Amino acid sequence: MAKAYVVAILGATGAVGTRMIEQLEQSTIPVKEVHLLASSRSAGKTLTFKGQPVTVEEATPDSFNGVDLVLASAGGSVSAKLLPEAVKRGAVCVDNTSHFRMDDNVPLVVPEVNPDALNHHNGIIADPNCSTIQMMMALEPVRRAFGLRRIIVSTYQAASGAGQSAINELEDEARDYLADKPMNAAVLPVKGAEHHYPLAFNLLPQIDVFEEDGYTHEEWKMIHETKKIMLGDKNSPAIKVTATCVRVPVPIAHGESVWFEVGAGNTPSADELRAAMSGFPGLVVQDDPANQVYPQPINAAGSRDTFVGRIRPDQETPGAYNLWVVSDNLLKGAAWNAVQIAEELVARDLVHVPAGAAEKFM
Amino acid sequence: MAKAYVVAILGATGAVGTRMIEQLEQSTIPVKEVHLLASSRSAGKTLTFKGQPVTVEEATPDSFNGVDLVLASAGGSVSAKLLPEAVKRGAVCVDNTSHFRMDDNVPLVVPEVNPDALNHHNGIIADPNCSTIQMMMALEPVRRAFGLRRIIVSTYQAASGAGQSAINELEDEARDYLADKPMNAAVLPVKGAEHHYPLAFNLLPQIDVFEEDGYTHEEWKMIHETKKIMLGDKNSPAIKVTATCVRVPVPIAHGESVWFEVGAGNTPSADELRAAMSGFPGLVVQDDPANQVYPQPINAAGSRDTFVGRIRPDQETPGAYNLWVVSDNLLKGAAWNAVQIAEELVARDLVHVPAGAAEKFM
Repeated sequence: MAKAYVVAILGATGAVGTRMIEQLEQSTIPVKEVHLLASSRSAGKTLTFKGQPVTVEEATPDSFNGVDLVLASAGGSVSAKLLPEAVKRGAVCVDNTSHFRMDDNVPLVVPEVNPDALNHHNGIIADPNCSTIQMMMALEPVRRAFGLRRIIVSTYQAASGAGQSAINELEDEARDYLADKPMNAAVLPVKGAEHHYPLAFNLLPQIDVFEEDGYTHEEWKMIHETKKIMLGDKNSPAIKVTATCVRVPVPIAHGESVWFEVGAGNTPSADELRAAMSGFPGLVVQDDPANQVYPQPINAAGSRDTFVGRIRPDQETPGAYNLWVVSDNLLKGAAWNAVQIAEELVARDLVHVPAGAAEKFM
Repeated sequence: MAKAYVVAILGATGAVGTRMIEQLEQSTIPVKEVHLLASSRSAGKTLTFKGQPVTVEEATPDSFNGVDLVLASAGGSVSAKLLPEAVKRGAVCVDNTSHFRMDDNVPLVVPEVNPDALNHHNGIIADPNCSTIQMMMALEPVRRAFGLRRIIVSTYQAASGAGQSAINELEDEARDYLADKPMNAAVLPVKGAEHHYPLAFNLLPQIDVFEEDGYTHEEWKMIHETKKIMLGDKNSPAIKVTATCVRVPVPIAHGESVWFEVGAGNTPSADELRAAMSGFPGLVVQDDPANQVYPQPINAAGSRDTFVGRIRPDQETPGAYNLWVVSDNLLKGAAWNAVQIAEELVARDLVHVPAGAAEKFM
């Protein structure tokens, strides 16, 4: 009989955590037992897994005793504190927070793009940023077929990237706006920041905190995660990347306008790009302008797939192209990509912490 | 005593038309008499000009008898039919529709950028597309100080670009969505198109109809209008431009994420760019990341100014930069720019149709 796994979900009550439960229910992973972990505030709540009630427990280091696999999405500081404890206890962790993504000991994985990076994990595997994942999904088939030299991306990111509280805030603001009442912002653009601004019927060109160079941390993530995923080196100059990240009044599913240059000397047609993309798992080409077919958040929300369209050459720069890519930021951008990494770990029989690995995170 | 002008506003009841009335009320143009023109459907309505009631009249060729200046925003087919009639009757027309913009006999003018193009008008002056205008406002001071070689723009365009009916549709959809009812789209993305999609809590990567090359006509406009305004030639290769235009669920004020390259060999700092922009009339630099200061539609709506922020160098391409620009698409993007053109025509004593000019539009 195939091995079955004890799986813990850390941050189980959040927007991503609840979807991790659903995605795990629907996954190919044989689950022997599931532990739903959260902060003390949520402990005692009852959720369900495959129809059975499961009580949420407070996450402590000892929560990971006997656990094989952890799916974590409880915030960077929680992962920083608890995942080394989980690894020490022999649990392999898939972390959806940004905390370990740039650690050289931690693979950063989109399973369709760089699954082999899993082979040498040290107990923690990082799930990339939602905006990065969907861009990788659209561009990896291009890179494989025609090379990739440069990316310039502008994002249209949904409120849910900042959690369920941001979705609630967007809807409350929209209700107030439509009733001619003042809008009250307390969450966006960044929880705990000095200023909050309404997102409803507005645009916020700030996602995450600002770096000293004027880029936001979200933009920084898109630049360096792209390089680490595609090139194995977060600072590689082989693909140039720049990004502008903007929050838009959409609850779920990010849009991205991506300009890119393929390898020197290559000038594939839009049809050749579409053909390359059509064969890529998890990527759906929705690109029929004559019939007004193109990706929209309202259609992508709830799907594991990434949708790409508006594929067309830059008319003045040979080898350069524009496209538009949309995906559910909570599924392929977070919960599904994490569960997919776990499936791949199971399929490769990699659900064990190598000897000596735990010390790397101490 | 200074000359006073008889001014007609064509399309006076629309989202832009009503704002043309307001902007004309607040302008420096000495108005002797105002005629408010619209379709037969709106004829008979009463609007006000400087506190006085004015009855809306049906627009016909003879409506322009005795008129000095026309501000038009009633749709391309109406301008196509009526503005040559107005010019024939001696009226100088500022047209907010796209119909005449690419005509070599028609100057396409942003007064802060290329006012001298007015000097040789033939009775019709075109007001550029809203998305183009605000991008010109942000980039013209850059071009003057450091040159400009390339623009890659992604837009975040408000519903009102498609008129008052699109604002109403967005708000109705939002109400339905929040009440868990299905959303009904009948206007966006393009009036009269085969398919309509909801904009509320969604993104529509289609503005205007598609060209055969996969670009929308809106994207085509941004490319060719930029070249005509900055270089005097709609096909000039001297500045490369590519665009992706997306409608976002915002009622008023467009956002744009703009990547650009300055002249070869120039590598101004972000501070030098900000300094160049700060001195440009009508452009307000809102760029203080440490204090979360950046342009937002909610703040720009209702202002004549264009707001620019998030100015920062591309970290891997010397001489390339990103910025974020926001402006009220109905004011600087339409009504105010049109009235501003009219003010400039008055200031330059150009409110007369040159002999023989009318035939150019017959």
